[in-house]
Amino acid sequence: MDFGQSDRSRDYLERLRTFIADEVAPVEARLHAARGVAQAQRQDTSGADTWAVTDEFRELQRAARAQGLWNLFLPDPELGAGLSNVEYASLAEEMGRSPFYSAVFNCSAPDTGNMEVLYHYGSEAQKEQWLRPLLDGEIRSAFCMTEPGVASSDATNMAATAVVDGDQVVLNGRKWWSTGIGHPDCKVLIFMGLTDPEAHKYQRHSMVLVPVDTPGVTIERMLPTMGFYDEPAGHGEVSFTDVRLPLDAIIAGPGRGFEIAQGRLGPGRIHHCMRLVGLAEHALELACRRGLERTAFGKPVIDLGGNRERVADARIAINQLRLLVLHAAWLLDTQGLAGARSAVSEIKIAAPRVTQQIVDFAIQIHGGGGLSDDFPLAGAWTAARSLRLADGPDEVHQSLVARGELGKYKQGGVRQK
Amino acid sequence: MDFGQSDRSRDYLERLRTFIADEVAPVEARLHAARGVAQAQRQDTSGADTWAVTDEFRELQRAARAQGLWNLFLPDPELGAGLSNVEYASLAEEMGRSPFYSAVFNCSAPDTGNMEVLYHYGSEAQKEQWLRPLLDGEIRSAFCMTEPGVASSDATNMAATAVVDGDQVVLNGRKWWSTGIGHPDCKVLIFMGLTDPEAHKYQRHSMVLVPVDTPGVTIERMLPTMGFYDEPAGHGEVSFTDVRLPLDAIIAGPGRGFEIAQGRLGPGRIHHCMRLVGLAEHALELACRRGLERTAFGKPVIDLGGNRERVADARIAINQLRLLVLHAAWLLDTQGLAGARSAVSEIKIAAPRVTQQIVDFAIQIHGGGGLSDDFPLAGAWTAARSLRLADGPDEVHQSLVARGELGKYKQGGVRQK
Amino acid sequence: MDFGQSDRSRDYLERLRTFIADEVAPVEARLHAARGVAQAQRQDTSGADTWAVTDEFRELQRAARAQGLWNLFLPDPELGAGLSNVEYASLAEEMGRSPFYSAVFNCSAPDTGNMEVLYHYGSEAQKEQWLRPLLDGEIRSAFCMTEPGVASSDATNMAATAVVDGDQVVLNGRKWWSTGIGHPDCKVLIFMGLTDPEAHKYQRHSMVLVPVDTPGVTIERMLPTMGFYDEPAGHGEVSFTDVRLPLDAIIAGPGRGFEIAQGRLGPGRIHHCMRLVGLAEHALELACRRGLERTAFGKPVIDLGGNRERVADARIAINQLRLLVLHAAWLLDTQGLAGARSAVSEIKIAAPRVTQQIVDFAIQIHGGGGLSDDFPLAGAWTAARSLRLADGPDEVHQSLVARGELGKYKQGGVRQK
Amino acid sequence: MDFGQSDRSRDYLERLRTFIADEVAPVEARLHAARGVAQAQRQDTSGADTWAVTDEFRELQRAARAQGLWNLFLPDPELGAGLSNVEYASLAEEMGRSPFYSAVFNCSAPDTGNMEVLYHYGSEAQKEQWLRPLLDGEIRSAFCMTEPGVASSDATNMAATAVVDGDQVVLNGRKWWSTGIGHPDCKVLIFMGLTDPEAHKYQRHSMVLVPVDTPGVTIERMLPTMGFYDEPAGHGEVSFTDVRLPLDAIIAGPGRGFEIAQGRLGPGRIHHCMRLVGLAEHALELACRRGLERTAFGKPVIDLGGNRERVADARIAINQLRLLVLHAAWLLDTQGLAGARSAVSEIKIAAPRVTQQIVDFAIQIHGGGGLSDDFPLAGAWTAARSLRLADGPDEVHQSLVARGELGKYKQGGVRQK
Repeated sequence: MDFGQSDRSRDYLERLRTFIADEVAPVEARLHAARGVAQAQRQDTSGADTWAVTDEFRELQRAARAQGLWNLFLPDPELGAGLSNVEYASLAEEMGRSPFYSAVFNCSAPDTGNMEVLYHYGSEAQKEQWLRPLLDGEIRSAFCMTEPGVASSDATNMAATAVVDGDQVVLNGRKWWSTGIGHPDCKVLIFMGLTDPEAHKYQRHSMVLVPVDTPGVTIERMLPTMGFYDEPAGHGEVSFTDVRLPLDAIIAGPGRGFEIAQGRLGPGRIHHCMRLVGLAEHALELACRRGLERTAFGKPVIDLGGNRERVADARIAINQLRLLVLHAAWLLDTQGLAGARSAVSEIKIAAPRVTQQIVDFAIQIHGGGGLSDDFPLAGAWTAARSLRLADGPDEVHQSLVARGELGKYKQGGVRQK
Repeated sequence: MDFGQSDRSRDYLERLRTFIADEVAPVEARLHAARGVAQAQRQDTSGADTWAVTDEFRELQRAARAQGLWNLFLPDPELGAGLSNVEYASLAEEMGRSPFYSAVFNCSAPDTGNMEVLYHYGSEAQKEQWLRPLLDGEIRSAFCMTEPGVASSDATNMAATAVVDGDQVVLNGRKWWSTGIGHPDCKVLIFMGLTDPEAHKYQRHSMVLVPVDTPGVTIERMLPTMGFYDEPAGHGEVSFTDVRLPLDAIIAGPGRGFEIAQGRLGPGRIHHCMRLVGLAEHALELACRRGLERTAFGKPVIDLGGNRERVADARIAINQLRLLVLHAAWLLDTQGLAGARSAVSEIKIAAPRVTQQIVDFAIQIHGGGGLSDDFPLAGAWTAARSLRLADGPDEVHQSLVARGELGKYKQGGVRQK
Repeated sequence: MDFGQSDRSRDYLERLRTFIADEVAPVEARLHAARGVAQAQRQDTSGADTWAVTDEFRELQRAARAQGLWNLFLPDPELGAGLSNVEYASLAEEMGRSPFYSAVFNCSAPDTGNMEVLYHYGSEAQKEQWLRPLLDGEIRSAFCMTEPGVASSDATNMAATAVVDGDQVVLNGRKWWSTGIGHPDCKVLIFMGLTDPEAHKYQRHSMVLVPVDTPGVTIERMLPTMGFYDEPAGHGEVSFTDVRLPLDAIIAGPGRGFEIAQGRLGPGRIHHCMRLVGLAEHALELACRRGLERTAFGKPVIDLGGNRERVADARIAINQLRLLVLHAAWLLDTQGLAGARSAVSEIKIAAPRVTQQIVDFAIQIHGGGGLSDDFPLAGAWTAARSLRLADGPDEVHQSLVARGELGKYKQGGVRQK
Repeated sequence: MDFGQSDRSRDYLERLRTFIADEVAPVEARLHAARGVAQAQRQDTSGADTWAVTDEFRELQRAARAQGLWNLFLPDPELGAGLSNVEYASLAEEMGRSPFYSAVFNCSAPDTGNMEVLYHYGSEAQKEQWLRPLLDGEIRSAFCMTEPGVASSDATNMAATAVVDGDQVVLNGRKWWSTGIGHPDCKVLIFMGLTDPEAHKYQRHSMVLVPVDTPGVTIERMLPTMGFYDEPAGHGEVSFTDVRLPLDAIIAGPGRGFEIAQGRLGPGRIHHCMRLVGLAEHALELACRRGLERTAFGKPVIDLGGNRERVADARIAINQLRLLVLHAAWLLDTQGLAGARSAVSEIKIAAPRVTQQIVDFAIQIHGGGGLSDDFPLAGAWTAARSLRLADGPDEVHQSLVARGELGKYKQGGVRQK
């Protein structure tokens, strides 16, 4: 159980931090200030298109790539950085401190997950058409799984269809929380639908690559989470009406949707959790700084009441969380997805919960300002809260962990270790 | 300790419910659907001015007033409904089920608090100029106390000034979280500032009535809470630069700001808590309905895992909260503000906490949709969370309650009852 | 919803407090000091028979009765004090401050519940034989329902039998947590067993009055809770082997066990909760006093860290709890058991939970001493914790409350009030 | 950050488990059954001397030692097993599953800590006289630091004195929670007292080795925790009246008490936490087994309500805790006590909290039995709860962790990593 960093990942981390501090943070501050000014002043907001990507941002991406800070998530040494999950953890944590950072380094969801799908399951043609430009940051992508009409926590509820009709596959249905669909560069989405209702329940669905401009694909609206649209990527509700594509748009062939979804969600969830560690650290830092700075009743705010106890509890919670995330990463590295399944569910439960609570504390320390956009806390809270639902609600992951735990005692009662 | 409703308040409640169900709810649904559609579609939003008040809404107000469902909060039988706080509690709870309702009946913050200030402390001229049109719903108002530059939880930190200069008072400083300042009908604000730094610490400040269009008053921007601007009332940051007003703009004369603030905040906080009971009830209702409706893993969602336990705990929490709010109202009715001070702080702590937690559960039951604007839950969470800071953060109220509790044992040790 | 006290109950309360302060508390302190000294000194403990009742205690009972402070729980004005549940609440709270007090006034469980069973369901002969001496405090009783061999949270699991055999009823089975069975004055127990497995599931069981010395009744052992035996009443494991009694030992006839159990448990649970309010108040008082008294790091302990916040939260929790208990009592008074069922379950969940948490805080403030027998806190914690299981575990009550809540929306969706 | 086990420690672990399963567990079960039977039957308990050590137990110790399963805690390869803290962690966890196990392997508190004090700070004579027989398991020891008269959480409150008088040191004062003092083999205690009130506050105290039979040493009584006396070691209140010893009874010379206490408490606290991981694991195992076994409402109890969610949360909490403990052990191994100080405080807070909560859940699953001595849960809860006070209350450790966290931002604001 070695969670230590290699010289290589330490070098990456150092360069990443320097780049963020020197190049990214100033731009972020500037964009943050500009963003929303129009609406705050109750003016016509059409001039400030928050759904656009600025030249400044694209320049940051180019500079990052030039320094090799690019596709760090991908274990493949040719196409990505070739880092293990344990090694990537500290980089993802660093990028997770702000929702703005990951995209600079082409490491943001849902693209990372989609690239991994293409990497592992895509045909050569699919890779050439979609993986290549995604790795180059030329285009972006979306993932369409969750549906508005059913409880999507139970994947067998999925109502959308991907029916094979001769040499075509025909898609119908409605998806929402399709993250990234609002991005001006979003060119392709991965759609999951029911292909064969008679097959085994894990072999009924297919994953289909759908160019966003295919006839029948309509972005019905963009969805806010807690009032945030998360521009420019956003979360969309998308309808599919008789969308026809050639059969080779299906990833790995019909019926493999579940298998691919599982393969996709494992690393995807770990990456989310790694980033949340960084978000929680950032919130704690902000709480400490603000609490030391502001004075009330003759003392720094941090010295009032139970605030220091909460700082201590936050430190403990983050340290525990980071270790648990590293543990899951180490299992994924050493035992593959099957050996890490419960561990991934464990962090998927723990990370948003811990982060949400620490951010809530940070908000409280900041007073009213903590709820505004002057600080990144309202957004951080929302990010953490969303992840108690996204990629499977807590309850589904608890169910999986409990099944594993109880299984030890059902099968002859060999004690766990 | 009689918390029962009178025949009169029961009659009011019945008529209020009917009016809301028949008249208000349909309009609310329509406006809710229209609101935000533009932005969701990433179109120019200038056409849908969310900071305007619709004719439909004004018509609702006229109809409510015609039925006597107007100014229900005001204990004065001539100017208001003449109800006790215990009687008003169930009406406020009903109006609190949606952030949309109170304003229909001219019972929304911060106007209710401001009207009470004018009613209790205003001169005849002030009443004529401002109370009358507020009671008529012709204008609206804001309250400017919290400041961005200091920890406002400690009111003695207040940096804004209201200096007497001959027959004028001169205001300088910067306020934020000035709720209501964005409303198109907002014509007056109450400003609190330091007048005499040498006086006793509770006699240093003054409250001043400031027409919004007075030179030197600038609405710098509107502030979001968790991404919500709460249009059309909104929360503003307002600067005051050499704002000059005649001395009789000071409410009750210089140096009485603290006294008035205390008098204002008591009922204001109780009203917030009464409304939160309604908000929590509504969230629980939505959770139950959704949980019964949606199916996952072969069962109604409400029957999965610990959901029913959470329903039970929510029911207990709301029942306790309602009783505690009634208890504070009863103390206010029978013993006045002094006798209810700790009780008001108790509910000010308990109500947002309980509501926040129940809304969080309701969000979880709703899945991703719970975080969007398709349901009123994201807004409800934000309303509850804000009230852990607004009108005094939890920690300040805890401090007051603890001081009262420990006082029992410091002064000779007579046991509390 | 009137929770106020009558002149009569106020008078009772005053006299009760005086009697406790003047007469009971000193004896309690003396007995407490004597108790356990032997074992603490690792001496032979046979001399200090903690299972005996002292003359001093019996003298207290006589004095209390002489002052009319006797059978206060019984609503019957002839046999008891004739107080409503709302009126009794403050008396029970007072008696609940120490596990020692209730018995002085003949108001302790399980006797109160057993007396109510006999009062409501007993035949004249049964009343003469058992109710009379119980009301006189001459004898004590036990209640035998829970069983070691099954999950007794589900009453239909009950395995013990009460089979009618001609003019006799024959009891077999094993019960535990038979509270009171260790008392030297315990002369009778109420046994619940399965009579007719074919009947409707709520009409299968019978309640039988069993003299403790009936052949076949064996007290197998006394059970500790968290190391406490709660002498002299105690909790026993009792076996019944072919215990034969005349048919008229069955209360209200065969098959009415469930009905009687429900009738018994309603007031019994309310009384437990009333007492827990007093226990929580006492723990908070001890925490405040100790926290003010002891100094660490240059301050009274109560002023360190989050202690004052915890005092405030405890005050809020107790006030809410008391109101919820009064609410349940008021429902029981005005609508009977059926109308109070959910309310009783609500307090049965809330009261032990709140009390346990406040006692835990008080222990922490007391340091190591808080866990010893120098303070009544270890015992208080155990009492509260036990009641999360006794008379139905939390989860069963949560299930009942949730069923009620969801029922509102299943049956046509009329909203609750 | 390598938490992996060596081949050597894995071998130890395997042999330890085998020995416990084959040799220790059966004896434990037998003793457990015998213990308390007398009192449970309300008989004279003088025959069953729970303060004695059985021959059976001594035989277990001999067998363990013969297999090299002895003094596993001591990093010295000659005198102990020579294992690192990371290596020892899994052995301590295994021994922590029952309060009975550690002593079999001569690895129980407070002896381990006392042996470490002697090992690191003792003179050759002191080692010869006391360390040798302690390592051999011939004698046992106690540690006398906490005092009844002051808040001992603040060590500067210490009132007991160790005054140098010529060639003697004279001890006066009163200590309590002197764990181990009741053991029939306890021959020596370590006493900490104030020597020079004028010295720097961390150089005022001395540690003195005191033979238990020294004149002036009186064991006033044994203290229960939650009703448990933890026989045969127990926790005593001990008075010291003009206890005179030669100067060389002082460990490392006068004024080094604080330094030694810190050195002693670091590993001592880690060992406690390692054991608590095992205790929590055991409680979870018991909860799972019982929950699978017992049936209510037609299902295994574990499948009711939120029980499976609680199993999952327990698994997450234990995994996080174990990793955090390993992390502290690794810091202690690689950076020494100074580098591990905050980490040790973090686990000292987290371990009892997590364990207490999981044990509480296990109790609830067991129903009434969970509170009795039929299961080791009541004792386990008490052990965990005690450790929220022993070796420094949570609040003191939170204060230390918070100071470290805030220090990062006070000293120029370099961000933590």
